[in-house]
Amino acid sequence: MAERTTARVQEILSWYQSDSPGTLANLHRLLMTGTLGGTGKLVILPVDQGFEHGPARSFAKNPAGYDPEYHFQLAIESGCNAYAAPLGFIEACARKYAGQIPLILKVNNSDSLSKLGGGPISAVTGSVKEAVRLGCAAVGYTIYPASDARNAQFEALRALTEEAKAHGLAVVVWSYPRGSGVSKEGETAVDIAAYAAQIACQLGAHIVKVKPPKDLVEHPEAKKVYEEQKIPTKTLADRVRHVVQSAFNGKRIVIFSGGEAKGTDAVLEEIRGLKEGGAFGSIMGRNAFQRPKAEALKLLSDVMKIYAP
Amino acid sequence: MAERTTARVQEILSWYQSDSPGTLANLHRLLMTGTLGGTGKLVILPVDQGFEHGPARSFAKNPAGYDPEYHFQLAIESGCNAYAAPLGFIEACARKYAGQIPLILKVNNSDSLSKLGGGPISAVTGSVKEAVRLGCAAVGYTIYPASDARNAQFEALRALTEEAKAHGLAVVVWSYPRGSGVSKEGETAVDIAAYAAQIACQLGAHIVKVKPPKDLVEHPEAKKVYEEQKIPTKTLADRVRHVVQSAFNGKRIVIFSGGEAKGTDAVLEEIRGLKEGGAFGSIMGRNAFQRPKAEALKLLSDVMKIYAP
Amino acid sequence: MAERTTARVQEILSWYQSDSPGTLANLHRLLMTGTLGGTGKLVILPVDQGFEHGPARSFAKNPAGYDPEYHFQLAIESGCNAYAAPLGFIEACARKYAGQIPLILKVNNSDSLSKLGGGPISAVTGSVKEAVRLGCAAVGYTIYPASDARNAQFEALRALTEEAKAHGLAVVVWSYPRGSGVSKEGETAVDIAAYAAQIACQLGAHIVKVKPPKDLVEHPEAKKVYEEQKIPTKTLADRVRHVVQSAFNGKRIVIFSGGEAKGTDAVLEEIRGLKEGGAFGSIMGRNAFQRPKAEALKLLSDVMKIYAP
Amino acid sequence: MAERTTARVQEILSWYQSDSPGTLANLHRLLMTGTLGGTGKLVILPVDQGFEHGPARSFAKNPAGYDPEYHFQLAIESGCNAYAAPLGFIEACARKYAGQIPLILKVNNSDSLSKLGGGPISAVTGSVKEAVRLGCAAVGYTIYPASDARNAQFEALRALTEEAKAHGLAVVVWSYPRGSGVSKEGETAVDIAAYAAQIACQLGAHIVKVKPPKDLVEHPEAKKVYEEQKIPTKTLADRVRHVVQSAFNGKRIVIFSGGEAKGTDAVLEEIRGLKEGGAFGSIMGRNAFQRPKAEALKLLSDVMKIYAP
Amino acid sequence: MAERTTARVQEILSWYQSDSPGTLANLHRLLMTGTLGGTGKLVILPVDQGFEHGPARSFAKNPAGYDPEYHFQLAIESGCNAYAAPLGFIEACARKYAGQIPLILKVNNSDSLSKLGGGPISAVTGSVKEAVRLGCAAVGYTIYPASDARNAQFEALRALTEEAKAHGLAVVVWSYPRGSGVSKEGETAVDIAAYAAQIACQLGAHIVKVKPPKDLVEHPEAKKVYEEQKIPTKTLADRVRHVVQSAFNGKRIVIFSGGEAKGTDAVLEEIRGLKEGGAFGSIMGRNAFQRPKAEALKLLSDVMKIYAP
Repeated sequence: MAERTTARVQEILSWYQSDSPGTLANLHRLLMTGTLGGTGKLVILPVDQGFEHGPARSFAKNPAGYDPEYHFQLAIESGCNAYAAPLGFIEACARKYAGQIPLILKVNNSDSLSKLGGGPISAVTGSVKEAVRLGCAAVGYTIYPASDARNAQFEALRALTEEAKAHGLAVVVWSYPRGSGVSKEGETAVDIAAYAAQIACQLGAHIVKVKPPKDLVEHPEAKKVYEEQKIPTKTLADRVRHVVQSAFNGKRIVIFSGGEAKGTDAVLEEIRGLKEGGAFGSIMGRNAFQRPKAEALKLLSDVMKIYAP
Repeated sequence: MAERTTARVQEILSWYQSDSPGTLANLHRLLMTGTLGGTGKLVILPVDQGFEHGPARSFAKNPAGYDPEYHFQLAIESGCNAYAAPLGFIEACARKYAGQIPLILKVNNSDSLSKLGGGPISAVTGSVKEAVRLGCAAVGYTIYPASDARNAQFEALRALTEEAKAHGLAVVVWSYPRGSGVSKEGETAVDIAAYAAQIACQLGAHIVKVKPPKDLVEHPEAKKVYEEQKIPTKTLADRVRHVVQSAFNGKRIVIFSGGEAKGTDAVLEEIRGLKEGGAFGSIMGRNAFQRPKAEALKLLSDVMKIYAP
Repeated sequence: MAERTTARVQEILSWYQSDSPGTLANLHRLLMTGTLGGTGKLVILPVDQGFEHGPARSFAKNPAGYDPEYHFQLAIESGCNAYAAPLGFIEACARKYAGQIPLILKVNNSDSLSKLGGGPISAVTGSVKEAVRLGCAAVGYTIYPASDARNAQFEALRALTEEAKAHGLAVVVWSYPRGSGVSKEGETAVDIAAYAAQIACQLGAHIVKVKPPKDLVEHPEAKKVYEEQKIPTKTLADRVRHVVQSAFNGKRIVIFSGGEAKGTDAVLEEIRGLKEGGAFGSIMGRNAFQRPKAEALKLLSDVMKIYAP
Repeated sequence: MAERTTARVQEILSWYQSDSPGTLANLHRLLMTGTLGGTGKLVILPVDQGFEHGPARSFAKNPAGYDPEYHFQLAIESGCNAYAAPLGFIEACARKYAGQIPLILKVNNSDSLSKLGGGPISAVTGSVKEAVRLGCAAVGYTIYPASDARNAQFEALRALTEEAKAHGLAVVVWSYPRGSGVSKEGETAVDIAAYAAQIACQLGAHIVKVKPPKDLVEHPEAKKVYEEQKIPTKTLADRVRHVVQSAFNGKRIVIFSGGEAKGTDAVLEEIRGLKEGGAFGSIMGRNAFQRPKAEALKLLSDVMKIYAP
Repeated sequence: MAERTTARVQEILSWYQSDSPGTLANLHRLLMTGTLGGTGKLVILPVDQGFEHGPARSFAKNPAGYDPEYHFQLAIESGCNAYAAPLGFIEACARKYAGQIPLILKVNNSDSLSKLGGGPISAVTGSVKEAVRLGCAAVGYTIYPASDARNAQFEALRALTEEAKAHGLAVVVWSYPRGSGVSKEGETAVDIAAYAAQIACQLGAHIVKVKPPKDLVEHPEAKKVYEEQKIPTKTLADRVRHVVQSAFNGKRIVIFSGGEAKGTDAVLEEIRGLKEGGAFGSIMGRNAFQRPKAEALKLLSDVMKIYAP
């Protein structure tokens, strides 16, 4: 953790003026930990793919990852701001590494086995009570705007958020448009990504995670406005800037996922675009833990260098 | 806030005789704040369009609106009676502007992404507990009479109302007929608007918001009565008078929305009709915050002048 | 209220032997108030049509009825035993007329706008807690036996009844067969009406309201029994006698609704049949409040004279 | 009640070793009351047909039965071990006959009016709290194994059972296979009846009620086992013996219903078969209360004589 | 119980570092009881087939099994680590054998009668509160990954797990892929089994039970990885090793079911494969209790010998 707070971190905290000192303290921990501590930027290691895609698809490439301890170590050694995972992975090592890295308990998860009827919706797999028991700094929750099951998700998040704030935790929302209200292609359209960020902010999230948006406007009614107002969407930086603006004019922390595993150059190029657009950072899972540890440490270090002022 | 209470405000409060002093004090705050304070009329600034229509469609025209602080300032500087918004927007500045303007927490919201199955129903996105934490004077809830999901909505509102009153808050109900029980055209028919106002009142609302009704009677059984009893519906004032009468003979506060953004003349003409029909005021969002600030202040001032005695 | 209790009222109370003194005191209030106080007969004014049919269809004929205060006054001046209405109407004047007439809070209601899927079921719009806050003597709940949504209704009523009795309130059940289990015609068949009364009694109601039954037996299996046992159903008195017997051999208070607005002679003739069959009284809404006040007072007075011993 | 406990009753109680003294005391009351008190056999009078089939079909044949008091008297005078009925019937006389006969509150009930969608499931119409208030010894709950609504029923029973045991009550389960998982004919097949008894026991019932099984094996997989293991099913006694064995090797009280009203000889012949097969007794409704009282007393006395050692 | 703890048991407990001493004490009891006490291996006797398949299909072959006491005795005499059963079977003898063998209360169960709509999901039939009352060391819960009813199951398990851990109990999860998301054949595919184990671990299970996997990879996306990474799946030992690795790199206890009744040689051969692959033990029901007692004791003894170091 950086030795003392910084002006930038204090500025960011000032945007969360209705939160309790307890929640602010946890946001402070998230912003002050790791290589980027104090810069106002974050790189977070998330490992929920064992649950979401299955163990072999997630860990066989770098079998060290079967072991929950590996990810704690990777997050700490690489200088990440936080480590995010489902209940089981957090429980496995929370005592041993207590206090060494802020933890984000992912409290809902999906798997690749079930074909649920209705709109996409993850199962609730954790709770604020568990997060408190395990010493977490935040809870994480995934919503699928555009899902037919919107209400169930927003309402569960609402209750979770109220409870988390009452317990001094921060709330991280994964906002992934998906479902009958959006085309497959449109899931990462720039209007949809901006809207997804706005919704998460209105629902009370402290940190919002969206996917890097593409140069595409999905909704016809939005398209008219983008054209009339000449909102630039050509470069990734343009689009990120628009998404960050859509998150309360940049007054909410918006971070971007890395998506599928890809080559190092592609990763770093994307990070540069994100940085240029004003992203607050990245959350990088498969691109980190599916590489051999040395490579992963190198990549994360390079990413952090891009984000560093 | 007007310096001292007025006879008209006391008369209005007398209609809410079963409410606690706590709730009456909050109604008093709503009626005594701003340019119209003490007159018994209200103009309220609502900003939930970021959630309902998306950020670009709502704020790109006047990008200052991306910032939640802008709306607090606009509501205060324009002399509105209150500011209404979803959780995220309220949280963003509730501490900084604490006490400067009565706040209405919109506790349910819809978005334009999901295609929900079943009847239209908004997601619950706030709570009485949050409203109390954030120092709000009231909670706002949208019902869609004519929706197949009527029972879920009325029952959620019932519970909310009971809890709000027990916590000394006022309850504002947006009553928008929509769903399989009404034609698209009929959503603003005069019989439907009057019915929507009646339902909200019977459900215990203190303030009811409906849309300005059109000269159309939707239901055949109602049509017979309108003709037999020669209920005048030709002018907007006629129709507003009927809607206000349908709200407990004018003993509940009924305000009207401004609807889609339109030209200044059209707005003011509508307000004159509302005033003439006995409306208690207006709630005006897009027509206010999508204009440049100076224009918005001018328009709101003109609106208030029409309502002023 | 009659000055002191009567033998008949004491006899009626003796049938409710498992109830608390608190509930018995409220039943006593209902039986001792108004013109019929002490006779064991009741006439109740219900005004939920604003909610159920809309304001114009309910009140335009006699516009005084738009005002909630009118109905309190009508119920008191006409010498009714009680006044029943939804939350909004009760809240509007409960403080001003506190103690002057027993109130029945209708805690569920339907409207004519929504086309609900599934079986008919009203929305819960009030609660025992609200009834206690407003000084009511009883809560009223409508069930639709023969609805596909039977279980939700019976179970909500069960919980309501348990809570009401624990708070010393009486429970009035509107038992209106409706739904896929009964033909339109059969909704007021004598076997169905008797069954509806039995169900309400078994569910723990203190007072049951059914519609005057027609000379028709709906269910084939019931028909066999009515023929074998030669149960007389030709006159209204016959049928009422059978319904009253079906309500625990006459040991539960069964009252009858007046139905649609109709001519004075038709109303009084029906009341005579009800009286002759042993009905405990009537609940009369539209036939009362849609007449000019003087006419309504006269009609209610005539009705009470028929019921008086 | 028999003057003092007997060895047989103590043996039976020993099978319920995990229950509290409170629940054992109530089982003891059930086993020590009436003509068969102390023998380990039971005859119970159930009267829920007014709810389940309607009042005329249930009571017109012997109109004394319209009156809830009649059944209390019949159960007491005939020397039954207990009287079982829905809330309304129990409430009507629980105070007057308090302590004179153990009461079983039937806490769920169906009617013949509704055509519910989904699998058969009764409505919850009573509660442990009500049973305690009314001085009952037990609660009764009906499950329909083979219903599509299995989970809702088993889970409601589970919660009820936990609560009943925590309040010192006994639990009687009516286990009637019905629904899409069983043919109409197969509802009383011997394998299905045995399975129904097993399920009720596994769910924690103290007393299980099933219908007398027929000489038929419904499920093909079961059929193989019945043939291989040569399980005798030819006589009623054979089949009852198998059902009793299926109820924890005879260590749970299993009683049998009498079914539809029929002639005296048929009733008594069936009882002899039940007795011979080791049934713990009978629950006899329509065959008792639809006869004139003198006949009913005679029949019940004859039934008890068969069961007496 | 082994006289004192062992290094291996302490190692295993170290993996559950976030659990309370109460839960660890119960895991310790499970690991220190019976013939294999102290070795880190477990053999558990489960008897829920009476509920799941019916009494005759389960117990007719060895009728001693109709009696719940038989299974307590079998588990104790055979030197099992624990006995698992539904509520009724546990309640029947929990007092008599209190403390003699760790008990696992199976808190959900299915039967073979109902054809539930929707995805497969068992009914909840027990609770943590009951487990505590009955002196159990653990609760057991079955999930069906790949079921359309995934969310209801995962969420019920989540709540159960939180409550169990708060009460110092251990949690055993039966993880059986079944439903529309997996082919019949694929239910025991090696990728599916490994995924099922991972899910149960992520949901917070202490002990996971899966079926022995077949040499088959179900999901095309998984297949690619199995081939690329050359994950060996030819022998049972290979596949078990992979499943154990998928359970947090072997840091969660994974045991295997015996499946359908079969010949002794087939059973023992399978056990040898499980042992070789690193299984923590077996749970063996029908193969144990459907044999005559002497044979069952011999078989269980032989199984334990294979697992013993």
